[in-house]
Amino acid sequence: MPRAMQSVWAGGTYNFEAMNSGDRVPSIEQIRRAAERIGPYVHRTPVLTSNVINELAGAEVFFKCENLQRAGAFKARGATNAVFSLTDDEALRGVATQSSGNHGAALARAAGLRGIPVTVVMPGNALAIKKRAVAGHGARIVYCEPTPQARDEALAEVAARTKAVVIHPFDDPRVIAGQGTAALELFEQVGDIDTVIAPVGGGGLLSGTALAARSLRPDARVFGAEPRNVDDAWQSLKTGRIMPSTGKASIADGLLSTLGKLTFPIIRDHATGIITVGEESIVGAMRLVWEHLKLIIEPSAAVAVAALLARHDEFQGRRVGIILSGGNVDPDKLPWA
Amino acid sequence: MPRAMQSVWAGGTYNFEAMNSGDRVPSIEQIRRAAERIGPYVHRTPVLTSNVINELAGAEVFFKCENLQRAGAFKARGATNAVFSLTDDEALRGVATQSSGNHGAALARAAGLRGIPVTVVMPGNALAIKKRAVAGHGARIVYCEPTPQARDEALAEVAARTKAVVIHPFDDPRVIAGQGTAALELFEQVGDIDTVIAPVGGGGLLSGTALAARSLRPDARVFGAEPRNVDDAWQSLKTGRIMPSTGKASIADGLLSTLGKLTFPIIRDHATGIITVGEESIVGAMRLVWEHLKLIIEPSAAVAVAALLARHDEFQGRRVGIILSGGNVDPDKLPWA
Repeated sequence: MPRAMQSVWAGGTYNFEAMNSGDRVPSIEQIRRAAERIGPYVHRTPVLTSNVINELAGAEVFFKCENLQRAGAFKARGATNAVFSLTDDEALRGVATQSSGNHGAALARAAGLRGIPVTVVMPGNALAIKKRAVAGHGARIVYCEPTPQARDEALAEVAARTKAVVIHPFDDPRVIAGQGTAALELFEQVGDIDTVIAPVGGGGLLSGTALAARSLRPDARVFGAEPRNVDDAWQSLKTGRIMPSTGKASIADGLLSTLGKLTFPIIRDHATGIITVGEESIVGAMRLVWEHLKLIIEPSAAVAVAALLARHDEFQGRRVGIILSGGNVDPDKLPWA
Repeated sequence: MPRAMQSVWAGGTYNFEAMNSGDRVPSIEQIRRAAERIGPYVHRTPVLTSNVINELAGAEVFFKCENLQRAGAFKARGATNAVFSLTDDEALRGVATQSSGNHGAALARAAGLRGIPVTVVMPGNALAIKKRAVAGHGARIVYCEPTPQARDEALAEVAARTKAVVIHPFDDPRVIAGQGTAALELFEQVGDIDTVIAPVGGGGLLSGTALAARSLRPDARVFGAEPRNVDDAWQSLKTGRIMPSTGKASIADGLLSTLGKLTFPIIRDHATGIITVGEESIVGAMRLVWEHLKLIIEPSAAVAVAALLARHDEFQGRRVGIILSGGNVDPDKLPWA
């Protein structure tokens, strides 16, 4: 990772390198405080079940419906916690991020709720629906070329000029604590869950989920689910160091990020393992949820359901919680059409 | 309506003509008892909101998600209440109905839960997914020609031979009381609702909704929503007598039935009015719910959302509950594909 990018993401008031590990890894108390802080601004999403899916999996499965979350994804939790964690002085400077997806919209929404400026760097070729979602919350959009380098440079420029606090989409303890509130709620809503599956891209959701679940139930098993086409989290755990995303494509376009300096060690230390699944099984799982849960989920969320069905050995007879991470799907572009 | 059909539907232990009006119109106490009776077997479905839809409607809108109900529709409520209302002697004889849609699956499921025989008369050309849903609950299926007369004759034959209790899909007080539990829950879940919209086909859901809502809040306004192509409920209220469904097609294929002898006077006396909507606005409302609530709803459910958006004058500034009646949609046959 180029040094410039690190300094941007660590910018504003937050510098990962300067903190000790205890400050960087959210505690269950911090996750509980995050839940209180974001409570007025996000949904306590429902937990749904399907007898058909239970039978297919040979397990009792509890779906935590973050696709029904504000702005259509769990990202609202982390972004809202980050924005409402800022001191008044920090808030005056506003926030900034780069995102072509759900994090940008979630941060724009949170900043709007607090009434502070927000800038989102987006590639010019981002989907119109994503641009509208960000602009609709009153964010300033800075367009850039669709390359990681161009995005980092544009964000660095914004941060230098505006002094905005940069909120990383996943490698930030405030964001991770916020994402962990989904699993915290799940354990409050359903007793005796012994296994949790969450999709893994950059690892913010999986980190928060693992920290919450293992704090609440030390023997809980927490799995990340990842497309086989972009199995960098699996590779990273196997090799013991952060492996870059291969650049291959997956229908689960929310899971293309590489693990971060903060999320990698959390996942290494607290997750049970990573399960990888093929593209066809992701599409099949998406349809299955549609037909039996009547929920729109995006392919990235379906990856966790595909993992459930791929590994009978791990889940049979268990009480399994699955974080359905988001539901932002273009109705005109269904993967089976 | 031919006399033979009346006698079949009124058959088994239930004869509408022999009862006085007080027995035939469920009271709020009967709806509350239905809620207790079916509680172990159906979901208490969540209520969801969308800021975008609130803005479009100029109202605060609360969606009661019966698409997330067991078997994918509110029909589970009425069928379960009917089956579990039977005496042990009646139950021994089993139940029967005719249905090409959700009622058949819901009755089959309820009978399976009570462990009693169930026969469903279906047209041979019913969708394979519907046949599987009925058969999957262990029902005996009797196939017939796809005409009302053939269905009635087949059901009469089944009832005569098996002595099964015939459970009408809507014109039955036990079914109406069961459907009314959705509105009962909605009022428990959300305070201060002043307006409710439910789709109307045969009128079981609208009858139960109107009885529950007006009992809980006498000044509540309760609207039925109906496709303009099959506006027989609207015509019936206008003319003061049951008008037959015209036979025209609508994408909202769950709303093609004509009002019944029981549902018509309930709707006449307790509903505020019927709102009719065009086919394009139904499809648009279905997409809107998809995009902003992340829910799969069937076109019949979208009719109520289309009614909300069609009549600003009625709903502006109100707190509106909408019964999203079901979510049984074929993923390969989307109306906008």
